[in-house]
Amino acid sequence: MRLYGYFRSSAAYRVRIALNLKGLACEQVPVNLIKGEQRDAAHLARHPQGLVPVLETDDGTRLTQSLAICEYLDERHPAPPLLPADAEGRARVRALAQLIACEIHPLDNLRVLGYLTGELGIGEDARLAWYRHWIAEGFAALETQLAGTPATRACCHGDTPSLADVCLVPQVFNARRFDCDLGAYPTLERIVAHLETLPAFAEARPERQPDAA
Amino acid sequence: MRLYGYFRSSAAYRVRIALNLKGLACEQVPVNLIKGEQRDAAHLARHPQGLVPVLETDDGTRLTQSLAICEYLDERHPAPPLLPADAEGRARVRALAQLIACEIHPLDNLRVLGYLTGELGIGEDARLAWYRHWIAEGFAALETQLAGTPATRACCHGDTPSLADVCLVPQVFNARRFDCDLGAYPTLERIVAHLETLPAFAEARPERQPDAA
Repeated sequence: MRLYGYFRSSAAYRVRIALNLKGLACEQVPVNLIKGEQRDAAHLARHPQGLVPVLETDDGTRLTQSLAICEYLDERHPAPPLLPADAEGRARVRALAQLIACEIHPLDNLRVLGYLTGELGIGEDARLAWYRHWIAEGFAALETQLAGTPATRACCHGDTPSLADVCLVPQVFNARRFDCDLGAYPTLERIVAHLETLPAFAEARPERQPDAA
Repeated sequence: MRLYGYFRSSAAYRVRIALNLKGLACEQVPVNLIKGEQRDAAHLARHPQGLVPVLETDDGTRLTQSLAICEYLDERHPAPPLLPADAEGRARVRALAQLIACEIHPLDNLRVLGYLTGELGIGEDARLAWYRHWIAEGFAALETQLAGTPATRACCHGDTPSLADVCLVPQVFNARRFDCDLGAYPTLERIVAHLETLPAFAEARPERQPDAA
């Protein structure tokens, strides 16, 4: 398999964690988002939207969208599972993952921040306020959902990492980069502190990737 | 089951389609987003982020995030399936659904448009341009992914509706509301024209809901 990604892409980071949790070998091919390589013809042929990650399977099938890729890996390589065994548990884990992937990350990624400063001409302070607003709103909801139930244990759901944890760690990494205050989210911070001790998460960190600056 | 939604919410519209495709009865409880009922204590107890939809199951479990809810319904009520039988097909359908749910819809929903006009003070023209920009970028990528493969047939994947179609129809409905020009996306328009003839989709339309203005 081959993963087209970028060391600091939150979505590529998710897939790296999932691959590591499954113990799967995968060649990493960097696509430099700062240099604009995602808009090169070669990458657009892989992903018409010019985004990362793209996972190329051994038979050449190209998969896009990080959550779809993670579920594919989970179906093809079921152990250890990224989703609980019961339908209600799976719905909870998917909802936590989607709270991050559909409500926070899409608003704070590179192309959106670029539109705000480019087309809308907003300044640095307003851009930072935008970033932190969606982190704060999303993390507050996440904290409530995590703290309010015994289903949350060492990880977001139970004691082993799930798709929710796969999404949480990259989003917290990004929030720290933008100096977001995370003090109001103790459950979230406790879970992340635990996850960061696990090799699958540690080895997926941006600074450990071949294309890290 | 009970669905807390709003007639014009794209995410609630997805769940209505899924319920109809499965032939499931469900009580609809409107949460008026324009009047701000999503921020009432009663609704925040159901969903700490103050969003719709929330699906309450018969045992009182509350499920959030429309895609997680649709996958839950698909697991609990497998016929007719919302996902193909093969892992690659499922990955494709989930990626198409997520292209809409993670790349288009989050940027164009009410709370984001509200932030643009409120906190950032952008005018009506810039707000419309923002809306149409993310529709155009997302639909162009979707058109390429749909037109470029024989897997696309009457529907986004094969000849029966999948999770991708469940997301597509509400997003096109919203794009039309904002007078987006869809002429550049013939495959997408052809599929939507077909889906709109199906009762499950027709009965889920916003104007047919009890809380429609």
